[in-house]
Amino acid sequence: MTARILVVDDVEPNVRLLEAKLTLEYYEVLTAQDGATALQVAAAERPDLILLDVMMPGMDGFETCRRLKADPVTRHIPVVLVTALDGREDKMKGLEAGADDFVTKPIDDVILFARVKSLVRLKAVMDELREREESGRRFGVDTDGAGRLRASGGRVLVVDDNARQADKIVSQLAAEHRPVAEPDPTAALVAARGPVDLIIVNVSSGEFDGLRFVAQIRSTEATRRTPILGVVDPADRPRLVKALELGVNDILPRPVDTEELEARARTQIRRKRYADFLRQKLDYSLEMAVTDALTGLHNRRYMAGQLQALVGRAGQGGDQVAVLVMDIDHFKAVNDGFGHDAGDEVLREFAVRLATNVRAIDLPCRLGGEEFVVVMPGAPLEAAHRVAERIRRDVAETPFPIMGGAESLSITVSIGVAWSDGTGGDTPDALLKRADEGVYEAKSRGRNQVIARAA
Amino acid sequence: MTARILVVDDVEPNVRLLEAKLTLEYYEVLTAQDGATALQVAAAERPDLILLDVMMPGMDGFETCRRLKADPVTRHIPVVLVTALDGREDKMKGLEAGADDFVTKPIDDVILFARVKSLVRLKAVMDELREREESGRRFGVDTDGAGRLRASGGRVLVVDDNARQADKIVSQLAAEHRPVAEPDPTAALVAARGPVDLIIVNVSSGEFDGLRFVAQIRSTEATRRTPILGVVDPADRPRLVKALELGVNDILPRPVDTEELEARARTQIRRKRYADFLRQKLDYSLEMAVTDALTGLHNRRYMAGQLQALVGRAGQGGDQVAVLVMDIDHFKAVNDGFGHDAGDEVLREFAVRLATNVRAIDLPCRLGGEEFVVVMPGAPLEAAHRVAERIRRDVAETPFPIMGGAESLSITVSIGVAWSDGTGGDTPDALLKRADEGVYEAKSRGRNQVIARAA
Ligand SMILES: [Mg+2]
Ligand SMILES: [Mg+2]
Repeated sequence: MTARILVVDDVEPNVRLLEAKLTLEYYEVLTAQDGATALQVAAAERPDLILLDVMMPGMDGFETCRRLKADPVTRHIPVVLVTALDGREDKMKGLEAGADDFVTKPIDDVILFARVKSLVRLKAVMDELREREESGRRFGVDTDGAGRLRASGGRVLVVDDNARQADKIVSQLAAEHRPVAEPDPTAALVAARGPVDLIIVNVSSGEFDGLRFVAQIRSTEATRRTPILGVVDPADRPRLVKALELGVNDILPRPVDTEELEARARTQIRRKRYADFLRQKLDYSLEMAVTDALTGLHNRRYMAGQLQALVGRAGQGGDQVAVLVMDIDHFKAVNDGFGHDAGDEVLREFAVRLATNVRAIDLPCRLGGEEFVVVMPGAPLEAAHRVAERIRRDVAETPFPIMGGAESLSITVSIGVAWSDGTGGDTPDALLKRADEGVYEAKSRGRNQVIARAA
Repeated sequence: MTARILVVDDVEPNVRLLEAKLTLEYYEVLTAQDGATALQVAAAERPDLILLDVMMPGMDGFETCRRLKADPVTRHIPVVLVTALDGREDKMKGLEAGADDFVTKPIDDVILFARVKSLVRLKAVMDELREREESGRRFGVDTDGAGRLRASGGRVLVVDDNARQADKIVSQLAAEHRPVAEPDPTAALVAARGPVDLIIVNVSSGEFDGLRFVAQIRSTEATRRTPILGVVDPADRPRLVKALELGVNDILPRPVDTEELEARARTQIRRKRYADFLRQKLDYSLEMAVTDALTGLHNRRYMAGQLQALVGRAGQGGDQVAVLVMDIDHFKAVNDGFGHDAGDEVLREFAVRLATNVRAIDLPCRLGGEEFVVVMPGAPLEAAHRVAERIRRDVAETPFPIMGGAESLSITVSIGVAWSDGTGGDTPDALLKRADEGVYEAKSRGRNQVIARAA
């Protein structure tokens, strides 16, 4: 997969050399020769990756990286810092600044392209999530909160048959995270299915095939998105490249430098939590689309969709379906006499009474105002009537607390029950209308009662 | 990136050979020796890809493929049919059965791995969308409709400097789609940003660099997800592999077989429309999370979030904010006298009056029942009062049609107006409460009026 890459270096021949190499591999290349220009180009062009020289006059690579990662517009773009060979301090500072990866000068092309491919592949998936999240924000769905994500307390699984190395990694990470060692790869595959934020694998093990282990993690549904940090002998380049190709997210060279271990673990854990956060936010928003904001019950939209499907299935020989329509008696008097806040308290309490008096498969919904519906799949009319009577009694017998419990109100409800086997061209609207008529009859007979109507 | 691959072949040595090759490349391999077993394994294990032999006793590869593609559980798994060399008829039947790709026996490893990588990469992105869609379905969000997607009428851009070949492709596709030829790659890059469902590129052109063109399409935000069908000289294997690596979705060997062209174009267009469909459905669901189902106005959840932000900003020196709270007078009488359907008609009409009488930046919302709010960013109290008065008059002066226009009702509304500059610890709740008090005062003074309150 190709990508647009922004190359930043103060020395023009360096820029040209990298540009030529990348272009030859069919990457699209943008360039900048200082940090300020890099920030501008990154914000305007949103490249897929930034190769960023560390040593630049004025704003150096660290500061540029820090600013890229502080700006919501560019935060998601992977940054690869280009450092001097063995620049251990540079690495640490770079990771602190939020860099995603490193290559050292002079640049090893094979390793550069392996890292670029790995980061671009990850970004393609994340972009899909980010775009949906941006849509949500455009519609006004609250998607804040990413800023509060922690990078500590991560559950780390260390898979290494070299006991000394494993012990060192575990004890080093224990200050900040919750590491567990599992030297046996078969047991580790099982453990990885649990709640794990990061897997650290010895890819250069003599005893077990670390690459095979990575492949198994990546091709198992439950673990395929868990980040993997591969511990590799840096001299073993083919293995390093293959590890990245198979989906290792980052590489930790042997012998393991403890500070680098901490920094790279933190980066991977933070990134995973961001992806999980986006997925959960999207799922939450989807749930909100069918939820009544005040009571947490299903909303009218959800009720309509479900009832349509159930009545349709009933008509094709499926299960019968019953509905209860409920209208709280004299609810306007609550609002008028005690204010909207008290009214909302009553509605929320009513929702609780409803939810606790129906069967697990029933669907309690609020249509709006003081009107509620329960859809009861497979329920005969008598069973529905029994449930309605139970709700009516529970509401009438125990007063509703308002003003945070300081006062309480006697509340009653009028309920209409209707039933359908889907025959005779029965429709959801007709079914609801019959239940509605039951409500009206209950109201006209003095309220606080249940009126049932067969099809 | 690795993957789980299901290998299906009735001849055991064939299965073992493919298994060995794929395992050596670190793929996880599942196997089956007949169609029925393949269906079972595919449904239970959900592999990432299926390599499916065509010639099998009992259920052959075509029928197996057809069933895989008919089952919602396995429909999304790419199927690569393994056919006899030059099996043109097999190809056509396979594409009709829904196959995603082909390899011919004896299998060329390099091409096999290139195609597998390409399909697995695409699937990783689609899985992210599908999973969110499945979440939505679990919560009851309606996500049906994928079955109604058409594969015809596609907008196809043909980029080929070989005029004879381009003409042939265009005239062949014109019966089913809307093809346009653009021989100049620079102009084609611009054209590709428009509404295009498929790009067909001559990758073996002598005049322009087809691979570079593919890279540019793939690395441009607006075009990166548009499917590309690469026309390649099958003898030029390195180019074919590179094309797949760069993100060409499918390959059409030269000379172009017209039926194969049609079938592959249809597959790509259908797949793109499915992805677009999923993205739109998700965005629609996100929008529904903040929309009132009955009127299409914003809902309480949206209003609360926006008002929180606006009052907060006002307190930090940002723009002031005004709100109108509205309660339709004697609305219960409408429901009681004419039924809920008429009540809903009134609420919908009221929403229209509201939306047409506010400024473009104002946010009209329905809180539930007959209660509405308009949030007015940056509006001084007098301006808000003017808008409220305009709404009140529009409502009172023109009766509301009900029963589909057969009758009409005189409606009035009581409106409270409040305003905040965010100082003095003002909160959204306090602001709404002041507007609420205005509504109560309007009601007690005889309804159909506007009462404004400063901070
Ligand atoms: Mg420099
Ligand atoms: Mg066979």
